[in-house]
Amino acid sequence: MTQPLRLGIAGLGTVGMGVVKIIQQKAEILAIRGGQEVVISAVSARSKDKDRGFDLSAYAWEDDPVRLATRDDVDIFIELIGGSEGPALAATQAAIAAGKDVITANKAMLAVHGQALAQAAEDKDRLIRFEAAVAGGIPVVKALTEGLAGNQITRIMGVMNGTCNYILTQMQATGRGYEALFEECAELGFLEADPNLDVGGIDAGHKLALLAAIAFGTQVDFAAVELEGISAISIEDIRQAADMGYRIKLLGVAQMTARGLEQRMSPCLVPADSPLGQLEGGTNMTVLEGDEVGQIVLRGAGAGAGPTASAVLSDIIDIARGTRISTFGQPAETLSPAIKTASVTEAPYYLRMQLTDQPGALAKIATVLGEHDVSINRMRQYGHDAATAPVLIVTHDTLRATLDKALQNLPHTGVLEGTPIAIRIESV
Amino acid sequence: MTQPLRLGIAGLGTVGMGVVKIIQQKAEILAIRGGQEVVISAVSARSKDKDRGFDLSAYAWEDDPVRLATRDDVDIFIELIGGSEGPALAATQAAIAAGKDVITANKAMLAVHGQALAQAAEDKDRLIRFEAAVAGGIPVVKALTEGLAGNQITRIMGVMNGTCNYILTQMQATGRGYEALFEECAELGFLEADPNLDVGGIDAGHKLALLAAIAFGTQVDFAAVELEGISAISIEDIRQAADMGYRIKLLGVAQMTARGLEQRMSPCLVPADSPLGQLEGGTNMTVLEGDEVGQIVLRGAGAGAGPTASAVLSDIIDIARGTRISTFGQPAETLSPAIKTASVTEAPYYLRMQLTDQPGALAKIATVLGEHDVSINRMRQYGHDAATAPVLIVTHDTLRATLDKALQNLPHTGVLEGTPIAIRIESV
Repeated sequence: MTQPLRLGIAGLGTVGMGVVKIIQQKAEILAIRGGQEVVISAVSARSKDKDRGFDLSAYAWEDDPVRLATRDDVDIFIELIGGSEGPALAATQAAIAAGKDVITANKAMLAVHGQALAQAAEDKDRLIRFEAAVAGGIPVVKALTEGLAGNQITRIMGVMNGTCNYILTQMQATGRGYEALFEECAELGFLEADPNLDVGGIDAGHKLALLAAIAFGTQVDFAAVELEGISAISIEDIRQAADMGYRIKLLGVAQMTARGLEQRMSPCLVPADSPLGQLEGGTNMTVLEGDEVGQIVLRGAGAGAGPTASAVLSDIIDIARGTRISTFGQPAETLSPAIKTASVTEAPYYLRMQLTDQPGALAKIATVLGEHDVSINRMRQYGHDAATAPVLIVTHDTLRATLDKALQNLPHTGVLEGTPIAIRIESV
Repeated sequence: MTQPLRLGIAGLGTVGMGVVKIIQQKAEILAIRGGQEVVISAVSARSKDKDRGFDLSAYAWEDDPVRLATRDDVDIFIELIGGSEGPALAATQAAIAAGKDVITANKAMLAVHGQALAQAAEDKDRLIRFEAAVAGGIPVVKALTEGLAGNQITRIMGVMNGTCNYILTQMQATGRGYEALFEECAELGFLEADPNLDVGGIDAGHKLALLAAIAFGTQVDFAAVELEGISAISIEDIRQAADMGYRIKLLGVAQMTARGLEQRMSPCLVPADSPLGQLEGGTNMTVLEGDEVGQIVLRGAGAGAGPTASAVLSDIIDIARGTRISTFGQPAETLSPAIKTASVTEAPYYLRMQLTDQPGALAKIATVLGEHDVSINRMRQYGHDAATAPVLIVTHDTLRATLDKALQNLPHTGVLEGTPIAIRIESV
């Protein structure tokens, strides 16, 4: 056994306290597995006096996370504060400057500042590890960075926001609408303070951007992620998709194309009998596709104290064991700039729209789509009582840009009521 | 960049040639990811002259894998020969003695000699890595050893023989019997030279024993795995299980009990709508359960050149990066002897038997089961034309030993025809 590995933990919410608890309760097995004792030197949080149900008196207290991050008795700075800027970023930068390794669960910070932080860490020969930032307890960062390192990754996909998946699967299971389930999630505490982080796809988009950087050797670029949230998904779409053998998921997809890296986080139809289609409730799933390995699917809890702390501990033990891997799996200077590209992969789309109930309405829609090179695979007008008729269309493969142009021209037909819904059908 | 990392590859079958191909074709990205160039110094196989469709002339040739393993220009000995004894074992021992790291896909060798080899490697401060030995391309050894290292593992499960899962799911899908599908697998080359390795559960049992050692910190002990193959599974059982909402899988389960480590590889009923129940064809799945992380499911190709080579490459890149982890995740001397235990976890069982068609037959069976403390949850006699009546029983939770005792006493009733089928129903 060598010297103990000394931690400074900033942020004592459920995840931070989960990490403290594991280190207190499993000291012996962690030391055996890691090859050295792991100890907590100091902690930091907003309120020192809050009762956290745990004895923290053995650890030094710092009000200021920057001070914590630079303490002489800290080898690893563990950042569990959150937020892309502010104290989390300042403390992380200070830790690196002071020659500390960093472990963080902060997807927002890394999605925005990941390249600069990775470069700074490598300049100091230090590590940034972030297993806990993506898909909670699922060891997907490790699977991608290490387990599939012999592959050229061809595509990654993921359902990585448990709240959105909960809402969508509850809509399917109970027939309740989006608004009611959104309210329920708010009451249950399932939503971030800014709910748009969840339902707008931002949180999941952060995670996708991090995985894409590893998968494709590109500089992490959250701004390049095409984002679309779930708030426009209606119970009608859920039902019609199910009728056709699909489920609607907030699905992240990243793949390298001839024109650059395509990163999308948006509602998609996926086959109901696929692993992604079968994923229910708050569980997360990532799908990694490599040229050698084929498709690897990983499924588990994407949030919560235990799963997220498990991921933090994995990073701690890796460092204790002496594992040293670049933040995104290769030196930061070798990561290529991600060329922002509009979606250039074709796919079929599900369209739903309301037409005025008059002769020839369907034909007019079909004509406009055809004129704009959107080819129809299936088209169905279904039962109605009112003056408008609901119509479902499944297109053949098309570009989103092509489709959007066609949709922009549909109002000229004079038979369209309201705005059509368009949802990509992803081959998974 | 430091000195190149030099490989000696023994065994040039599909996996060995897959590894050679990746190293030839992806030299640049492997060097970037691993931080050093990876080169092949020498290779070995039974026949030098066989046309493998690849130019091997740049590599030194050794007829004898032991000579390959001990060459001065080899840093890592890659053992892809197979077999628990013979040249694979001799060469692995020689490599360790000569101070080489070892990467192997050889589950049989490690399941039998893993503890001694791990000890020998650690005495020399060398590594044995075996990601390719378990579940092909799924990075499950890494997930368990590293990704979940902060957890106390409570249970591991796996469908880890693709051929068995193919046979069972084809029985379900097509109604064809076991014998016909066995023959088809033989013709397709899906079976090992000794088919009992597949259908007898031995191959999957080897893999389970390796995962169990990591999960529970025990010395790998294949002899302690309770083995039962799939050859007794009939199309009738497949159908009846499906009627009740189950699928039959050759399922490995390992868990620590108060009386020792329980390791089972046997047919089990699992819910049809669970990830394990939904697993079709030759795909593998492992389920890892930890006290912090909950349940993690990993799914992917369990065999084939690409997936297995992907796993070997993962180990190569880990070593190139300087990652040094004990063979089973902690020093070999700290692994506790696995106390062999009969199955001590209770479960409900599915029973199917044929009774003579006479009044009171069912009651006699129920009485004997009751006298032996086997409690019946559901019991059903179903349609028949012949002189015997098929009966299905689902028991309440019971020990296998208790059940076996009851089953042994059923013939005394005089109403039983043939031997009852008993299959455990596993909570997954």
